[in-house]
Amino acid sequence: MPSSRPLRHLISLHDLAQSEIDDLLDLSLRLKQRPGKATLAGKTVGLLFFRGSLRTRSSFEAAMKQLGGNTINLTASSDFWELESGAGTVMDGRAPEHVKDAAAVLSCYVDALAIRTKPSGGAWAVDRRDADIRSWAEHARVPVINMESSLWHPLQGLADLMTMRESLGELRGKTLSFVWTNSPTAASPTAVHSLMHAALRYGMQVRVANPAGYELDEDVWRRAGALASEHGGTATSCTEANDAIRGAHVVYARSWHSLEDYGNPTLAASRRARAGDWLLDERRMALGDEAKLMHAMPVRRNLEVVDSVLDGPRSLVVRQAENRLHSQKAVLQWLLRS
Amino acid sequence: MPSSRPLRHLISLHDLAQSEIDDLLDLSLRLKQRPGKATLAGKTVGLLFFRGSLRTRSSFEAAMKQLGGNTINLTASSDFWELESGAGTVMDGRAPEHVKDAAAVLSCYVDALAIRTKPSGGAWAVDRRDADIRSWAEHARVPVINMESSLWHPLQGLADLMTMRESLGELRGKTLSFVWTNSPTAASPTAVHSLMHAALRYGMQVRVANPAGYELDEDVWRRAGALASEHGGTATSCTEANDAIRGAHVVYARSWHSLEDYGNPTLAASRRARAGDWLLDERRMALGDEAKLMHAMPVRRNLEVVDSVLDGPRSLVVRQAENRLHSQKAVLQWLLRS
Amino acid sequence: MPSSRPLRHLISLHDLAQSEIDDLLDLSLRLKQRPGKATLAGKTVGLLFFRGSLRTRSSFEAAMKQLGGNTINLTASSDFWELESGAGTVMDGRAPEHVKDAAAVLSCYVDALAIRTKPSGGAWAVDRRDADIRSWAEHARVPVINMESSLWHPLQGLADLMTMRESLGELRGKTLSFVWTNSPTAASPTAVHSLMHAALRYGMQVRVANPAGYELDEDVWRRAGALASEHGGTATSCTEANDAIRGAHVVYARSWHSLEDYGNPTLAASRRARAGDWLLDERRMALGDEAKLMHAMPVRRNLEVVDSVLDGPRSLVVRQAENRLHSQKAVLQWLLRS
Repeated sequence: MPSSRPLRHLISLHDLAQSEIDDLLDLSLRLKQRPGKATLAGKTVGLLFFRGSLRTRSSFEAAMKQLGGNTINLTASSDFWELESGAGTVMDGRAPEHVKDAAAVLSCYVDALAIRTKPSGGAWAVDRRDADIRSWAEHARVPVINMESSLWHPLQGLADLMTMRESLGELRGKTLSFVWTNSPTAASPTAVHSLMHAALRYGMQVRVANPAGYELDEDVWRRAGALASEHGGTATSCTEANDAIRGAHVVYARSWHSLEDYGNPTLAASRRARAGDWLLDERRMALGDEAKLMHAMPVRRNLEVVDSVLDGPRSLVVRQAENRLHSQKAVLQWLLRS
Repeated sequence: MPSSRPLRHLISLHDLAQSEIDDLLDLSLRLKQRPGKATLAGKTVGLLFFRGSLRTRSSFEAAMKQLGGNTINLTASSDFWELESGAGTVMDGRAPEHVKDAAAVLSCYVDALAIRTKPSGGAWAVDRRDADIRSWAEHARVPVINMESSLWHPLQGLADLMTMRESLGELRGKTLSFVWTNSPTAASPTAVHSLMHAALRYGMQVRVANPAGYELDEDVWRRAGALASEHGGTATSCTEANDAIRGAHVVYARSWHSLEDYGNPTLAASRRARAGDWLLDERRMALGDEAKLMHAMPVRRNLEVVDSVLDGPRSLVVRQAENRLHSQKAVLQWLLRS
Repeated sequence: MPSSRPLRHLISLHDLAQSEIDDLLDLSLRLKQRPGKATLAGKTVGLLFFRGSLRTRSSFEAAMKQLGGNTINLTASSDFWELESGAGTVMDGRAPEHVKDAAAVLSCYVDALAIRTKPSGGAWAVDRRDADIRSWAEHARVPVINMESSLWHPLQGLADLMTMRESLGELRGKTLSFVWTNSPTAASPTAVHSLMHAALRYGMQVRVANPAGYELDEDVWRRAGALASEHGGTATSCTEANDAIRGAHVVYARSWHSLEDYGNPTLAASRRARAGDWLLDERRMALGDEAKLMHAMPVRRNLEVVDSVLDGPRSLVVRQAENRLHSQKAVLQWLLRS
């Protein structure tokens, strides 16, 4: 049910003007105070999960339902299907359907499509192009919302920004330190990418600490430098957790794979075994400036972060998760309210 | 929650009088213009998928939700269970529950049951009896809606009729040609069965083109002949796509398995390899009388139909899919409105 | 969204005072007469199924939706994840998340959590502690509703009580006989545990008949004896179906595994083969005092109970299933109405 407004997608926070992010954060905070109104009655969002999800799916469904709207899960495992995305392909392979057709059809049934894509896991140079989510956005006739692609996690980024604004107030000049953690089931750097760039647009001092070999994507990092210059912040990296934490206002823990071993689990496990101690404990956190702890979850307790820090007064981790609900309600209301 | 009205099921379009089909098509077109009213608030339809589905499930859920009602997915993969349907059986086999009991119980929870059955894939002489969907209809105490069985796909048929009426106006005397396509993942002839019989009841000239060995079910074809005689149309078959398309007003592309190889994938693949060229391209379509293209999807682009035809001005394929929504809303409102 | 009322969970019917059970039964019966009101509009219950379910899930979803509320299925198979429940564990094993965190986060999104846990199937001495459901109740900030754990099935128990009250009127002094049945896919004794204790609190005479080796859990049985003494009933066991049925007002058929073979399918199958004839037929049922038949389903027809008894006038099995809906609506309204 396409509307007459220009079609907007949310693939990355770069799709939003700074004033729009400001408005969304204000709306998120208002919705957190007064959750009640059924402003999206009669609206339906289709959810496509090409990869599993617990927190994203449940917070997204709850957001839509609290606003009086509906969700349709389009990819229960029995419905799963492979899609072709190349233009002009003779479709004699495994995929029985083209994204072009699936997107056109589903656009007839729902008011927006929220999509989590599955990276091929083969080559980072390919996956980083985010061809899947971009193909959906190209062919859909309703707004496409990125629920995490290879490169971005804008909904997590927005919830994290909201959480920092609640906790720190003014963000300009404050220090946000991303600290790598050593997990046997590494998450991904998407939440770091989205929040890092957004924080730099707010003039924050951003640091990233990781073992050698775990450097972030070159282009993401180059863009970070440019955003720092443009908005009066900084973007620096180091290879010691303590260097990043010293004087920081926020310590954001996150595990991610080495891009050098991308798609090679054996090499990845071997490299991880040599990465050393990155556990966030009381001693390390004490180096910060009354630093808050953030983590996008799931978190491996006492392996990534010790219990006393996670459950202590400076932990924002549950609040971050709660704010997924409120900030997604803001996004949905912004995109779908007639 | 059985009501006091006589219980009606929709297993095949033959369950509907011609005047009821007319009324449903009129209602479908009105609902397409004015989708708004929540006429089914408080009503719930249970969805049982014994076979995967994307388009049917999403359009059905969207239809029910746009009418203010709810759906319950009764067969997520973890819930899946085998059911016994024989009368008087000593149930010492794999099935822990009888359709009789499952139907009686679920009838207590929902206002209708929409069911997609899974053909055994063993013998066509058995599967064509549609024992599963008929067993549900026998034991349910609420309306049963067929979301595709071995033999019929009435909801697709109704959407296709609606699409033809929108596009062609009066159907009587117009030519509708079903043309077989060569797909490695053949769909099924159910959409052809349902639409062919319905079109004949409207006095259309129906042609079916397929390679030798891909003839439709004998009884379905016999009934087609009888309907043609009764309503002043024709039902003819041929083995060349061009013969069917020449002068046609609608070319309906569809892949289906050979009944001669039913349940034998090896023979089926071998026969398919010898079936020759059935690609629908501009040249072939030009033989028609400004022929529209229809296809129930999913469609393998450039293998079944070329891009330029699928995306061209005479393609009705996206509209067919959209009309699933509107015509299913009409069916639901007809069956469930108190 | 925690409320200001004290947090109540429903893990076992022992969590309810007798007056609260009375109130819930009255409310269940009223809701069965007048199902209409949307008293839970805007409320959402999260459903976690660590084990499959058909009847429980569909009746629970229907209950919530009929009250105007929503449900979110939190564990579609693609979302499934293992959770750690130990305190202070260094989480370097398979589980990527702790129940503590999952419960805290999900409590932000929904108004209650309804959970079906999966027994490990290893050792009964461990499983009987119900550590999983108790861990969720410990960490959740919203009410936790047990949809069947290793030991209890309070929602089935409540529906069964409601069904007996409807059918027998006053329960005090009436005889309720649980009779083991021989099924190749044995259910579990949870429904027996919950209903047996509740019936004893109402002063009923409870009998349990099972082959030697299929005795109920010792502690559950000890508690049954204590409840009988306290409330003026009796709790007796025997090893012949006929002894239990003679003079009974209700015969409740149920299959369950032997605790002696718990976690050992080979021994279990061997023991089952020697268990003899436990089929409930007309002849056996005639020994009762116009005895009603109850069964929590799924039921293997003609292996557990013959068709003529299941479909006869004294069978309450469909009514039991229907009453799941009404009594769950009562529980939901009691727990969630603001």
